[in-house]
Amino acid sequence: SGVDRDPSRLKRALEMGVVSREGFDREAEVVFVATPAAVVAEAALDALSRCGPSAVVTDVAGVKRPVTEAVKDPRFIGGHPMAGSEQEGVEGADGELFVGATWVLTPTEETDPVAYTKLRALLVELGADVVALSPERHDALVAVVSHLPHLVAASLSRLAASQATDEAALLRLAAGGFRDMTRVAAGHPAIWPDVCVANAEEILSNLDRLSGLLEEIRKLIVAEDKAGIYRWLDEARAARRSLPSRIPLPSELAEFRVPIADRPGALAQLTTLAGSLDINIYDLEIAHSAEGEKGVAILVVDGARASELRSALAAVGLGSTYRPLEEERSGW
Amino acid sequence: SGVDRDPSRLKRALEMGVVSREGFDREAEVVFVATPAAVVAEAALDALSRCGPSAVVTDVAGVKRPVTEAVKDPRFIGGHPMAGSEQEGVEGADGELFVGATWVLTPTEETDPVAYTKLRALLVELGADVVALSPERHDALVAVVSHLPHLVAASLSRLAASQATDEAALLRLAAGGFRDMTRVAAGHPAIWPDVCVANAEEILSNLDRLSGLLEEIRKLIVAEDKAGIYRWLDEARAARRSLPSRIPLPSELAEFRVPIADRPGALAQLTTLAGSLDINIYDLEIAHSAEGEKGVAILVVDGARASELRSALAAVGLGSTYRPLEEERSGW
Repeated sequence: SGVDRDPSRLKRALEMGVVSREGFDREAEVVFVATPAAVVAEAALDALSRCGPSAVVTDVAGVKRPVTEAVKDPRFIGGHPMAGSEQEGVEGADGELFVGATWVLTPTEETDPVAYTKLRALLVELGADVVALSPERHDALVAVVSHLPHLVAASLSRLAASQATDEAALLRLAAGGFRDMTRVAAGHPAIWPDVCVANAEEILSNLDRLSGLLEEIRKLIVAEDKAGIYRWLDEARAARRSLPSRIPLPSELAEFRVPIADRPGALAQLTTLAGSLDINIYDLEIAHSAEGEKGVAILVVDGARASELRSALAAVGLGSTYRPLEEERSGW
Repeated sequence: SGVDRDPSRLKRALEMGVVSREGFDREAEVVFVATPAAVVAEAALDALSRCGPSAVVTDVAGVKRPVTEAVKDPRFIGGHPMAGSEQEGVEGADGELFVGATWVLTPTEETDPVAYTKLRALLVELGADVVALSPERHDALVAVVSHLPHLVAASLSRLAASQATDEAALLRLAAGGFRDMTRVAAGHPAIWPDVCVANAEEILSNLDRLSGLLEEIRKLIVAEDKAGIYRWLDEARAARRSLPSRIPLPSELAEFRVPIADRPGALAQLTTLAGSLDINIYDLEIAHSAEGEKGVAILVVDGARASELRSALAAVGLGSTYRPLEEERSGW
């Protein structure tokens, strides 16, 4: 069931079969808040107050710290699906949209592991690849890989338009590179004002870092320091080439089992610890009975970092076992 | 025939059949200088002094004003093929490399139309799409669509590497956009020090413009001016979307015939005039007998600008005729 402040949009969703009935379902197991970022907290708190005690509430906004700080509830888990289409609104509904897409969840100290497990299972069923990150880590990473690049692409587009009214000549010289670099700037700006303001701190500090880098190369060019320019670009090349071009193979990953208390904070202890070591959690699920007091967290991480993580877990009193992840996990 | 300062490379070229003999051919009709930008002028002047009076000399460097200013010879025409491969040196030799690629030629006041026509015919035979631009216009455009974007991509790569040691998490969040925006920074930096220094003026002024644009969006974010952010990004979107996504259809182009004197400067008068009106020349050839004193320049331009160009030509005393370009040009 679904609600929307625009009745005509809701009507269209009913016609399309995207929702089967109108209104708020008080028995809902999972509620997705899909509003502009600025009003997510308000809508999420409203949903939590209307639904029964086993309902999980999540959202899909592109900035996670403000909303997770505003909605400190064990049953609210911030989310950010990294997928979308060019279509806006309900017309873009697509049952396959999340197949293979990364969907970030941002559990915190408050998060109820039962709620996390329920939400994660649903997203996996939709085909998504769920990644757990702290809200702060998520916001810092998206500022670097998405928000700042978007502003740069927009700037380059404006610059090109201002410098070359002869678009045909521009096109022929641009080849593929320029078009690739500015493609994201062709997207609709609707979500961006909220994103820019909500993640302002990270965006501004990265804008300053970028300005510093551009100033570095500017000085090298002014000084006609060819050796320096070469070195600077060669370091950038190494940085770019160190970005992995693929998701690791299962055989390169390790699967950890960590017995944990079945209470809020237990999950966040794991994600925060891994985050502090810069170890990415490829997968995180909780195996337990919803009634039990103990559960087992199952983490999938880079196999090369496994012994390091095990030591760190031991240092905070968490015993763990790990083994290489294999394609077939039924052997357990 | 070919020469190289590295004997082993020349040997390899002979083995591969890329050149059929070693040494400088004094009877050469066309000489391609393919050295780093900083030594093109010296090599081109050397080639001009060694070859007979009908030889045409060209180069392939990515910045054109310095070399065309240094080599003021009717038989030297600056060139810039917009093609290449990941392979370096003679190992990258490929007879199909230029098929469909844009190859910029930069005739000037000094250029001999006979030399231009000979060079252009050879490039067309290689499958290239020849575009005529003034050296200044070429350098200004490549600064915007290639040089500055390269420096920005390198900066973003460095920034990402400095901010996210957890490359796997970065990759998953980056989706396609970030990889697209930084792809060029993965290329070998060998040619870039020369390019940056040779085109420093244009690169630096566009770096300043970019800094100004980033400062604009920075101020809007600091002011939390959501309406302003929206407007700024929407203007960028319009700019990006106005980049044509295809080369015009032949039916959208007009073919001009302009009788011109068969002497240096006649060609540059046409390219400079079109450039001042921001009308792109899709094709330019000269029909004449090499012995005659009069020729006919055939220009292909955007059909929508045809009457404007005709008036401008008339204003400088050049009569012209034009008609829509058709697939089949045999009707003439």
